[in-house]
Amino acid sequence: MLSPLFNPKAIAIVGASTKELSIGNVIIRNLQTYGYTGPIYPINPSAPEVCGIKAYKSLAEIPGEVDLAHIIIPAPMVPQAIMECGQKGIKAAIINSAGFSEMGEEGDRLQQEFLATAKEYGIRLFGPNCQGIINSDPALKAYCNFTFTYPEPGYISVVALSGGVGGLIMQALDDLGIGQRLYASNGNACDVSIPEIIRYYGDDAETRAIILYTEGFSNPREFLETARAVSAKKPILAMKAGRTEQGAKAASSHTGSLAGVDIATELIFEKIGILPFSDEGEMVRAAMAFASQPIPKGNRVGIITNTGGPAVIATDVLVGCGFDVPKLSESSIEKLKSTQYPEAALENPIDVIATAGGPQFRDALNVLLEDEDIDCIYITFVTAPFTDTDAVAREIAVANQRGKKPMVCNFITRVRMERFQKTMQILKDSNVPFYANPSDAAKALSALNKFGELKRRDIGQPTQFAGVDTAKAASIIEQAKKEGRSVLSATDVYTIFEAYGIPVAGWQVVATAAEAVAAAETIGYPVVVKVDCAEIDHKSDMGGVAINLKTAEAVRTTIDDMQKRLGSFGELRYFVQKFLPGGRELIIGAAAERELGHLVMFGLGGIYVEVLKDVVFKIAPVTHLEAGEMLSGIKTATLLDGVRGEQGVDKEAIINLIQRVSQLLTDLPMIQEMDMNPIMAFADGVFAVDGRIRI
Amino acid sequence: MLSPLFNPKAIAIVGASTKELSIGNVIIRNLQTYGYTGPIYPINPSAPEVCGIKAYKSLAEIPGEVDLAHIIIPAPMVPQAIMECGQKGIKAAIINSAGFSEMGEEGDRLQQEFLATAKEYGIRLFGPNCQGIINSDPALKAYCNFTFTYPEPGYISVVALSGGVGGLIMQALDDLGIGQRLYASNGNACDVSIPEIIRYYGDDAETRAIILYTEGFSNPREFLETARAVSAKKPILAMKAGRTEQGAKAASSHTGSLAGVDIATELIFEKIGILPFSDEGEMVRAAMAFASQPIPKGNRVGIITNTGGPAVIATDVLVGCGFDVPKLSESSIEKLKSTQYPEAALENPIDVIATAGGPQFRDALNVLLEDEDIDCIYITFVTAPFTDTDAVAREIAVANQRGKKPMVCNFITRVRMERFQKTMQILKDSNVPFYANPSDAAKALSALNKFGELKRRDIGQPTQFAGVDTAKAASIIEQAKKEGRSVLSATDVYTIFEAYGIPVAGWQVVATAAEAVAAAETIGYPVVVKVDCAEIDHKSDMGGVAINLKTAEAVRTTIDDMQKRLGSFGELRYFVQKFLPGGRELIIGAAAERELGHLVMFGLGGIYVEVLKDVVFKIAPVTHLEAGEMLSGIKTATLLDGVRGEQGVDKEAIINLIQRVSQLLTDLPMIQEMDMNPIMAFADGVFAVDGRIRI
Repeated sequence: MLSPLFNPKAIAIVGASTKELSIGNVIIRNLQTYGYTGPIYPINPSAPEVCGIKAYKSLAEIPGEVDLAHIIIPAPMVPQAIMECGQKGIKAAIINSAGFSEMGEEGDRLQQEFLATAKEYGIRLFGPNCQGIINSDPALKAYCNFTFTYPEPGYISVVALSGGVGGLIMQALDDLGIGQRLYASNGNACDVSIPEIIRYYGDDAETRAIILYTEGFSNPREFLETARAVSAKKPILAMKAGRTEQGAKAASSHTGSLAGVDIATELIFEKIGILPFSDEGEMVRAAMAFASQPIPKGNRVGIITNTGGPAVIATDVLVGCGFDVPKLSESSIEKLKSTQYPEAALENPIDVIATAGGPQFRDALNVLLEDEDIDCIYITFVTAPFTDTDAVAREIAVANQRGKKPMVCNFITRVRMERFQKTMQILKDSNVPFYANPSDAAKALSALNKFGELKRRDIGQPTQFAGVDTAKAASIIEQAKKEGRSVLSATDVYTIFEAYGIPVAGWQVVATAAEAVAAAETIGYPVVVKVDCAEIDHKSDMGGVAINLKTAEAVRTTIDDMQKRLGSFGELRYFVQKFLPGGRELIIGAAAERELGHLVMFGLGGIYVEVLKDVVFKIAPVTHLEAGEMLSGIKTATLLDGVRGEQGVDKEAIINLIQRVSQLLTDLPMIQEMDMNPIMAFADGVFAVDGRIRI
Repeated sequence: MLSPLFNPKAIAIVGASTKELSIGNVIIRNLQTYGYTGPIYPINPSAPEVCGIKAYKSLAEIPGEVDLAHIIIPAPMVPQAIMECGQKGIKAAIINSAGFSEMGEEGDRLQQEFLATAKEYGIRLFGPNCQGIINSDPALKAYCNFTFTYPEPGYISVVALSGGVGGLIMQALDDLGIGQRLYASNGNACDVSIPEIIRYYGDDAETRAIILYTEGFSNPREFLETARAVSAKKPILAMKAGRTEQGAKAASSHTGSLAGVDIATELIFEKIGILPFSDEGEMVRAAMAFASQPIPKGNRVGIITNTGGPAVIATDVLVGCGFDVPKLSESSIEKLKSTQYPEAALENPIDVIATAGGPQFRDALNVLLEDEDIDCIYITFVTAPFTDTDAVAREIAVANQRGKKPMVCNFITRVRMERFQKTMQILKDSNVPFYANPSDAAKALSALNKFGELKRRDIGQPTQFAGVDTAKAASIIEQAKKEGRSVLSATDVYTIFEAYGIPVAGWQVVATAAEAVAAAETIGYPVVVKVDCAEIDHKSDMGGVAINLKTAEAVRTTIDDMQKRLGSFGELRYFVQKFLPGGRELIIGAAAERELGHLVMFGLGGIYVEVLKDVVFKIAPVTHLEAGEMLSGIKTATLLDGVRGEQGVDKEAIINLIQRVSQLLTDLPMIQEMDMNPIMAFADGVFAVDGRIRI
């Protein structure tokens, strides 16, 4: 579908200009400079030629077929131009012009107008208010963009709504000497969307890794589903900006609450195995490693260095990123002994010392490549003036070309010295990813490892519990909706919970003190009594809750008292429930998220949620693995195992409960908000003891 | 004292070599290449000249005076060479040779030998096993080092024990185009120490900021005191590696426990206002800002950009680093309206849009410079091909040269394009610190702001409490030492606490049940009874503690029972204390730290310390401000204010308690460990209810 956009056989420039540095001129120059292999057709009402190429007065006059048009004319003229594109049979248009939806109502009207025309003619629109695309394929060399960096062919494809960030990513990759495959920055994105572009990159055989910059998604569900399929095939490295309230405001996007848009984007990345970054430099440097290195099979790193300090820095960063720096095996150490200088340190890090030459590096590299307890290799290589640095670089290159284990190199040199430029070129030619700073090199290797972990993490399918009564739950909600109630009654809530097999502490709803006593006798003392009345929202604050009632007398007195104090609010009913002391308080919450489904939250109740905000979110449906991650993901996870001699709680029951909640939310998308607070967890089960549903 | 080292008037090279790329050759070449202005005297037993300079057979033959010698000869010959230095009247020697204390006993013996000789002759030794120094002063140009980067003169001075990291910092500064003033990497540091070098940099008028890389200090107290004085005068940017256990192992330094060496170094940085970094790239980029920019007066940043996305990224980072991005004042917005393009966003960030030229940038910069609610300025400037980028750069340069408010620039361009090289040169010439990545630029500005906060934070002097009875406390410890007890008895501990005015819950020590009842009647019920016997260490686990005893009968039964069960351990005494339920449990701990004094720890007791490890450390003596920071520094600090309707605790009483503990530790340095666990805190006071002191 996007082939005319990314693989144009001929390009027309509507708004081609003879004025140097104008966009209508720069784009033609860029196509020429980059070496576009197809015909270029400038459209200009008066100039006979632009940039030395014959110009046409209109699209209709072009003799050959055209599949892509650049539109660089004032906004009000764009609808007419799109119509002429359609008449010419053009299949895609990049609208660089601005002045549309980003400028308010009138602009938006214009945008809708040409979009309708495009749909009619089957034209795919890119932009408006955008940069464009680049395809570095040597057979095509399409630079349909007004930027100024000309990427070498490569394996990284980039997509960024923001042209500014897209441009700086492109520049950063180029500064690192890494090629790029495809590039797209689509501005207002009125038609061709980020998910579509990601899908296209996923199908592109030459793209090995994808860089994505976004400030949020207009249709997060579409992104989730498209990117999930692509992410299964190749790594997606992504950065989401607008993470802070003020950043989000700067991005003019919705600010979001605790469970707002921002959390959702990060949760989408997590759910589908996209590697998240919060630093654009780190992301680009990681991409350099992805472009040439395999994914490590595990987190055990072997370190070689010819200088001490940088390896210490690297070890700190690697360990901090979850790497293990294991002791080398006896046989590895023996092998090293036979080849290394006596001053060398044969630990991990292996310090071959500053005077080490090619042979010492070769042997150390071979030992790490062969050692079965090492998954990947980190090298610090400073170009000591008194050694044959080219020989060392060649040994690193040879080891890298064996391709057995991923490696990165912290290459410390003076770039401006001719002698070391040659050394650097050897590393470059062999595609060893190298970095001037040890922390940067370590973080790039860590990105490979984290992606390996994401690949090995199979979240599985959500459990489908049998015997749930969706019809019953749906009919309760339907009835409430009919009656105009957005907050369900306690009876409704507990009935829905029970329909989904969610364990609830024994309960009954009664109207009188006598009925309450009878209910308590059935349920068994101690009990809790809560007033149940649509007009009373904050029961607890109103004195509408009494806990730990141990006798019939206590139940009776409580209800008489509540009737006296609260009777004026309306007809009171009472919720009588088993009182469950001594358990661990948990909380599960859920909120509908625009276009995406529900976010589910889990945490410990009380101060843990209120003061520590120690909660974990996931996107429903939540699988067994994900529910387990919610339990282990809170900072206070050890409390679930029991501390200070207490018994731990039944974690499998909590995981089951989270998944049942997830199924309930997925089946009943009209639920806007749901809380279970608290849930009481014990060594042998969990019980929801208070719940709230808003539709 | 270090003048002959950093300002040598003449340099001898002992071990000068005609062999290219050998260290004895490289050092002479470096002096020549860099343009050393004094005489160079190669010492070589056979060659008549080295690198075209007349060589001498021995130091004695040198005709003129020499104040600095490089020693580059095999280890066993070094002691003799140092003696000859002494005889020649040389005042400082850089020993590049290796093979000393880093190689074990024999090497260490050699090192001690020449160190003694040097002391005798008054020679200051630098190294051994080191790189050397650099002084970029144009009048001197001393490159006494075998590295390969030749720094331009500048205002940053660097010190790093590790030559590898020193070299990469030097290279990174050079890559950023920033000059350096002094450089020192002193390897084994047998004589000239890091603190001395820091003090020298502090006194050097041209040094504006200091970069320090360390893996720990051999004498942390000396460092603390020296660096504190320097840090009061100029910023010290520091990185400590070996932060992880494996990193520390790689640095061959002591691993340390929870309160080990590692924490101490960071605490020293905090105490004396050194700016800590964990990423060497970030540190060097920050130094670039320190070299030219003033320190912001506050955290309110104004942002100007000509492209959207990068400013969103910057906003996220700035806000994440504690900046405020305030709304601009009405009058500022009015001023902007009159000059900016209609499409510009007149918020903060100010988006002047891609087509903005010099005038738009100028006006936006002026508005931020004049706005009293803005303390510093962040600029994103992408070199849009269709604008006069030189004019924009000139406006930024002019605004920067007004020097009124600190600014950094995220400059997005293609370095390889000639046209933009000129733009970049304009920024460079005006000393605007600029960075390719918005996150990097934002972090550099943030370092300036954090340093401003450190400067404004006056920790003050520790409170000296009157009326403490140091003699009494000391005599108790003396007595225990005499008796060979390293763990003090409960009576000792509480008597010491009381001698320092530390509030303790009412207590008595008794021998019989009858005495216990009498004590309880005096103290008032409820009480706690704890067995007090030197042979019983873990009282609680042994059933030697009974809480909340409310009657004489309960006290009697408890003591009878303990006597029965535990009497076989030895003569039992009983500690009877007021039981204080319902308070907030706190913990204060302290441990002696090698050469430094004591580290003091504060946290909430129970699971907060055990599970969450939510504690804050400081170095004693602790001031009022620091004690307050300990309270606000725990993650659960809000619990001290009271949550869920509870009353908060008496924070001033806790601050007082921490300071009294600090004074006790400072007065009695023989205390190795101390714990108060728990301390019970109430709205109107705090009480230590269990304590332990080890000497």
